[in-house]
Amino acid sequence: MRLMTTNTPPIITILTDFGTNDGYVGTMKGVILGILPHAQIVDITNQIQPQNILQAASVLSDAYRYFPPETVHLVVVDPGVGSARDPIALETPSGIFVAPDNGVLTYVRLEAESFHAVKLDNPDYWLPTPSSTFHGRDIFSPAAAHLASGVPIAKMGSVRADVTILPLPQITITPTTIQGEAIRIDHFGNVLTNIAYFHWVDDDTLELQPTYQQNEVTAPIRIKAADVQVTAGWHTLTGIYRTYSDVAPGQHVALIGSRGELEVSLNQGNASETMSIRVGAPVTIQLS
Amino acid sequence: MRLMTTNTPPIITILTDFGTNDGYVGTMKGVILGILPHAQIVDITNQIQPQNILQAASVLSDAYRYFPPETVHLVVVDPGVGSARDPIALETPSGIFVAPDNGVLTYVRLEAESFHAVKLDNPDYWLPTPSSTFHGRDIFSPAAAHLASGVPIAKMGSVRADVTILPLPQITITPTTIQGEAIRIDHFGNVLTNIAYFHWVDDDTLELQPTYQQNEVTAPIRIKAADVQVTAGWHTLTGIYRTYSDVAPGQHVALIGSRGELEVSLNQGNASETMSIRVGAPVTIQLS
Amino acid sequence: MRLMTTNTPPIITILTDFGTNDGYVGTMKGVILGILPHAQIVDITNQIQPQNILQAASVLSDAYRYFPPETVHLVVVDPGVGSARDPIALETPSGIFVAPDNGVLTYVRLEAESFHAVKLDNPDYWLPTPSSTFHGRDIFSPAAAHLASGVPIAKMGSVRADVTILPLPQITITPTTIQGEAIRIDHFGNVLTNIAYFHWVDDDTLELQPTYQQNEVTAPIRIKAADVQVTAGWHTLTGIYRTYSDVAPGQHVALIGSRGELEVSLNQGNASETMSIRVGAPVTIQLS
Repeated sequence: MRLMTTNTPPIITILTDFGTNDGYVGTMKGVILGILPHAQIVDITNQIQPQNILQAASVLSDAYRYFPPETVHLVVVDPGVGSARDPIALETPSGIFVAPDNGVLTYVRLEAESFHAVKLDNPDYWLPTPSSTFHGRDIFSPAAAHLASGVPIAKMGSVRADVTILPLPQITITPTTIQGEAIRIDHFGNVLTNIAYFHWVDDDTLELQPTYQQNEVTAPIRIKAADVQVTAGWHTLTGIYRTYSDVAPGQHVALIGSRGELEVSLNQGNASETMSIRVGAPVTIQLS
Repeated sequence: MRLMTTNTPPIITILTDFGTNDGYVGTMKGVILGILPHAQIVDITNQIQPQNILQAASVLSDAYRYFPPETVHLVVVDPGVGSARDPIALETPSGIFVAPDNGVLTYVRLEAESFHAVKLDNPDYWLPTPSSTFHGRDIFSPAAAHLASGVPIAKMGSVRADVTILPLPQITITPTTIQGEAIRIDHFGNVLTNIAYFHWVDDDTLELQPTYQQNEVTAPIRIKAADVQVTAGWHTLTGIYRTYSDVAPGQHVALIGSRGELEVSLNQGNASETMSIRVGAPVTIQLS
Repeated sequence: MRLMTTNTPPIITILTDFGTNDGYVGTMKGVILGILPHAQIVDITNQIQPQNILQAASVLSDAYRYFPPETVHLVVVDPGVGSARDPIALETPSGIFVAPDNGVLTYVRLEAESFHAVKLDNPDYWLPTPSSTFHGRDIFSPAAAHLASGVPIAKMGSVRADVTILPLPQITITPTTIQGEAIRIDHFGNVLTNIAYFHWVDDDTLELQPTYQQNEVTAPIRIKAADVQVTAGWHTLTGIYRTYSDVAPGQHVALIGSRGELEVSLNQGNASETMSIRVGAPVTIQLS
């Protein structure tokens, strides 16, 4: 159960592929404020590539844990709007999520220690007469506002046993290599990979934790950061570093990013462009 | 008269062509918060094409009705800033609008059952010594903040009998066709038309309501959605549907959009690009 | 000392080069709201060109004075993240600033009548175990939230005598010319110059105030606006005007912009494109 502190405004985040040219997101905020005028509304991003469910899932995974756990996260990347896919809500110890059930909550669901899911089939918490093309406005936004105002998730609709989980790109481990792939290019051109959940054990040593992204890993793997080579596209980089400016401006660098993932970057430049690396490109750590 | 509930923060929306690179909109928010620190400020969009008054009018028309009626909508698309065009405020039962009097409130004014308009000529509600190039900051933002704080519109300036209404693209109806045009391309490449104010009478039947956009319509027109053909560019599509995924991914589809308008789309793609359709292109419904 | 009014929410602005595609700024807002749930958070812009410290400094200079003086401005353009550059806070009579010490506060510092600066080296006001690549999330955002909640700057870390000031492009004055340069192109293609701090003495007369940007000016210079010529790129424009629409649509115009700077524009068009002017291009006022 959540306790609502009276002086703390409820927080709703928004993550969509709606762009910012059309007023679609503004309209959703109007609906939210009509129900919950003092909501704290935060855009995570509205620039997900149209219909790119996995990109949205990944961006959400980076962001949601930094919000208070009573936050409601409204996620509308919904190529199947108006079709048979269900609108759902998912409550976890780290946040409440409102989204179409198309896999956009894959990481959230895998990362949750426990969860409750419902189908948003109670029309009391929709706008009247929803359209078939804009459930973000007509179903998801009012549901998020009602949840943020304290309505229990059980009232929003019928219980679901689970939600859709999409297959994620997995890493391959041999005695001499860890192979993954580029899963996102950020605004700076940094190449983010699925070789993730590293942390620094000491100044020189990295440890890779087994997670759902590493289906062959059973125990933590330790590597000496200075000794490995990282291959991405035509480039091979020696060593894994801590930050961009550990190399000179204009130099490529492999490093551990802010959520523990292997990242390939160009200090003060755009590595994705200079290395011609796109999402899906293989990235390999040579261990010896 | 509006009643201000003490616990409900006043809402101000912002719609401009200022972009998001320069801090112009942030500066306007600073001015608003200096007057009304607890305002709920929502961006509708700041990505209107520079000086495109009709696009701004159309986006505003889609969004404003979804906000509480006491909301103040601040609209600054203002190619004539500093010239003879008046800064105005317009109060309607569905919202209060602050804008230059250049037609950007055309839809709002036509849709209003009643209204009061004033010229914002009372300098008590401006910043001191306004510039000639940034009335968004110096006149419109302080006016919006004062209106949202409860200052009656009558105090903001002298009464105006009416506001500027721009001519809108009209539709042409014959016994066999309804012809309109593309009036907006959205972020997804959906082609929005001025053949608008449709609703579904039953599963198969659409009704087109006469409105200000349909100058030849005197009574509602009913059509069988499956029987018509929609021509846009070089493409002819059979039937009018409810949502994108009523056709297979990669297929074009004509449908009724979320505000009742005829829309031409590509399921999980960009119809404007694949069909080479721009704003102003004719779109026709063949009735037989 | 600042007095916090209990009913006034603390304001935090955000200015970064993080773009809006990745959720980085949303994550920072999550951190802020975890500390200060009722903060008023305003984006100045997140579209600074990657690593362009001077552009960020200039945009900040335009915006901050329009916010209440107790506002905390969070500025993260940080090419040296994780390196030896200090994270700092700077308190001035016009605002409190949190930023890396790389010169991004140059204008703020030069414009301040007085200031206190600290290095943000007290880990009580960081997130636990900060990363090396995202101090915006781990150090700057929590520091801004704590400052906005009323923690005195002296508690945030050790005193610094001063902060980094970058050299700014200066103007050159002769008996017949004032020569400066383009320092920013805005969203509309207006060319903003460093010939700044003009004001209109009367309808015809401009006065240029000596400031830190004009190292050769010792006394105000007065000019007759109609008599001068402004040269930018291959174009020479006669007279300096008040606003864009003082010339016909499609005509170039030199005018005094909303912060007193000489600006070269195209009425209802993009002067930077039509005149082929980029940042750094010389712009000259011919006085006789």
